[in-house]
Amino acid sequence: MKHVAIALLGCGTVGKGIVDLLEKNADLIEEQLDTKITIKRILIRNLAKYERMDLPKSIALTTEFSDIINDDDIEIVVEVMGSADFAKECIEACFKKGKSVVSANKDVIADYGIPLLKMSQEHNVDFQFEASVAGGIPIIRPMYSSLNSNRIDRIIGILNGTTNYILSNMTERGLSYEDVLQEAQDKGYAEADPTNDVSGYDAARKIAILATLGFHSAVTFRDVAVEGIERITQEDISHAEEMGYAVKLLAIATQSDDGISLSVHPAFIPKQHPLANVSGAYNAIYVRGNGVGDVMFYGQGAGAFPTASAVLSDVMNVILHTNLTITGKRGYVWHQVPLVDPSHIEAPYYLRIIVDNAPGVLSSIAGIFAENGISIRSLIQKDETKEVAEIVLLIDSSADGLVRDALQRMTGLSCVRRIANAIRVIEI
Amino acid sequence: MKHVAIALLGCGTVGKGIVDLLEKNADLIEEQLDTKITIKRILIRNLAKYERMDLPKSIALTTEFSDIINDDDIEIVVEVMGSADFAKECIEACFKKGKSVVSANKDVIADYGIPLLKMSQEHNVDFQFEASVAGGIPIIRPMYSSLNSNRIDRIIGILNGTTNYILSNMTERGLSYEDVLQEAQDKGYAEADPTNDVSGYDAARKIAILATLGFHSAVTFRDVAVEGIERITQEDISHAEEMGYAVKLLAIATQSDDGISLSVHPAFIPKQHPLANVSGAYNAIYVRGNGVGDVMFYGQGAGAFPTASAVLSDVMNVILHTNLTITGKRGYVWHQVPLVDPSHIEAPYYLRIIVDNAPGVLSSIAGIFAENGISIRSLIQKDETKEVAEIVLLIDSSADGLVRDALQRMTGLSCVRRIANAIRVIEI
Repeated sequence: MKHVAIALLGCGTVGKGIVDLLEKNADLIEEQLDTKITIKRILIRNLAKYERMDLPKSIALTTEFSDIINDDDIEIVVEVMGSADFAKECIEACFKKGKSVVSANKDVIADYGIPLLKMSQEHNVDFQFEASVAGGIPIIRPMYSSLNSNRIDRIIGILNGTTNYILSNMTERGLSYEDVLQEAQDKGYAEADPTNDVSGYDAARKIAILATLGFHSAVTFRDVAVEGIERITQEDISHAEEMGYAVKLLAIATQSDDGISLSVHPAFIPKQHPLANVSGAYNAIYVRGNGVGDVMFYGQGAGAFPTASAVLSDVMNVILHTNLTITGKRGYVWHQVPLVDPSHIEAPYYLRIIVDNAPGVLSSIAGIFAENGISIRSLIQKDETKEVAEIVLLIDSSADGLVRDALQRMTGLSCVRRIANAIRVIEI
Repeated sequence: MKHVAIALLGCGTVGKGIVDLLEKNADLIEEQLDTKITIKRILIRNLAKYERMDLPKSIALTTEFSDIINDDDIEIVVEVMGSADFAKECIEACFKKGKSVVSANKDVIADYGIPLLKMSQEHNVDFQFEASVAGGIPIIRPMYSSLNSNRIDRIIGILNGTTNYILSNMTERGLSYEDVLQEAQDKGYAEADPTNDVSGYDAARKIAILATLGFHSAVTFRDVAVEGIERITQEDISHAEEMGYAVKLLAIATQSDDGISLSVHPAFIPKQHPLANVSGAYNAIYVRGNGVGDVMFYGQGAGAFPTASAVLSDVMNVILHTNLTITGKRGYVWHQVPLVDPSHIEAPYYLRIIVDNAPGVLSSIAGIFAENGISIRSLIQKDETKEVAEIVLLIDSSADGLVRDALQRMTGLSCVRRIANAIRVIEI
């Protein structure tokens, strides 16, 4: 049996999960590769912190990256740190030393994925990152090795577990956004500063990675139009339910003759759609190809073992490639593709507007929509008091820019107290 | 750009789909491989039949397999015929001639998958068969190249579109089994002789293939305990709905310390489970691994383009391997694993029993369950007339053999008119 030594950069939840899962499944993994895998070194920040951790004695802990990069025994480096810039430096250093890299770090891949892939090929090493999107769900490799016979025109993902947990619990238990967020923080599902999740940035990084691979493009996190779930209230959820929709934070990438469009935003999605039934902290990715039609991949998008499952399958792939002496040989094709201006993207919208309960209000509102060429599909006046009314509208598919403009003008009407929400309806 | 000539064995729906999808996506496919793909020859049965078909003039049609096997230009043979034995002979002949094979033929793979894989490796050629299970859904390759870091203990599939279409329509439209089957036949969704689908044999072949790969075993179609949907009535569907379940034909493979168990049977599955929401002709495969947890793959399980998508991704993989000179190099590991006696498999059951409406009947039935150590979870007497009553029971998880024995003994009671149905409840 052959032998491969690997190193880990980082030993948080995911790093420990990799150590544990490799120990648990060693015989099964090694038999498939005819290769024994040893974790030789782990880079950590603080030695004291890891003394309590139940790590095998055979693993050398170090706070110096140089201990790893200069160890010629180590053929594969697994990067499971958080940051983008230090991680990128480490990955580049590994490539230069002829070490293949497996990364679970979406920040690095979303920002530097294509340049790093190019560099890995120049150095004849592998760069794999299945765990960077949707944890354990196989999506990166299926995208480039199973759906590669398709022209992919749409990828829709529920890619952030925290926000899906919040929205699912608001829906199922009738709680407010604030209450569920607090609960999620108490349970450790959401971070003390939840911005990265609830504002959609985490999902944006993941959809940039998927669009890069699926569309053979080179887009980054900065190309995604991002909107979070902070403004979703129990009223929006209830109205959605009544109208036959679920509210989800969707990451959407589409490709047409006009170019690529990338966005993350809350959306109404028909209840019977498979994505509407993805609840709790689960993730799902719905892909449409011109051959395969619609396919969906579903599973746990985070967690120590699910993420370790993806990382170890990457490590296994690298070892397979090493044994066949074909690392760095996978061709990635990409093109410069124009981005569609987000204000041109069309969708039906759900709108909730708080107005004075007075004659002429509906007429003023309807007038503005008419001037912007927007058709009203349905309009219901709700929760009326003597002074205030809530108007819930569904408008036909309209360009985002026109909708934003109409809403902006409405806020100028004296009878309109506020635009409570404007949420796209995804009709698939 | 390099060049590869391929041949097709068979040109039915799938074969034509491959020709069309390859034409449609040629630039995208060839750019990824830096290789031009030409379909040089197609083996057909009847030349006259194909003259009306809109096939490119550049493809040579032949009724002689020897024209293909003796053409040294042809590196890859795509086998999309129906039969098992002739297909097997052709595949073996290809291997001997150093040609890699891509097959969409579940009959061949379910019966001879492992021997053919071994033979392909002996001849240093590839043997790929993504399309043999669940059409376009990527499942075969993800199973061995993404979930390979896991010990997989359960695979549950909705693997037959015809039966899922029938059950979905019985549920959604309240129709009888016979009426939906007739409709499906009229629309061409079900064959004139639907036995292979409705009796569960088609699903059995597919679960045998998945269990072989997922469990690193060598099971075949003949190891699967099969039960079809022919006895499912509208009453069963309605009772299931009332109790919070959907009725699905499930193909189930489990692996435990006792061995492997393989079965296809109708089942009650909780409505909120992702598999319960797979409707119409869609397929889904739900896999549980000891790292990844639960993952699901969903999509179209049949049809010209979805199947062609899987076949062409296999062809692309073979070309990639050819270009890297590593065909036949993927190691498949398998073990002899004992099969669990199906009569020992435990599950809760839904039972529907038609009895005389007379005193003492419930007591006699309850007595037989008690004697077999079976606990009754709930019992409802339904649809009572003066003379006949329908009893609907849910029993706690019990060994299949004990349940069958109890039901057999009940049919001996004079007050029991018939056992209308016995359906397992899958609680996941």
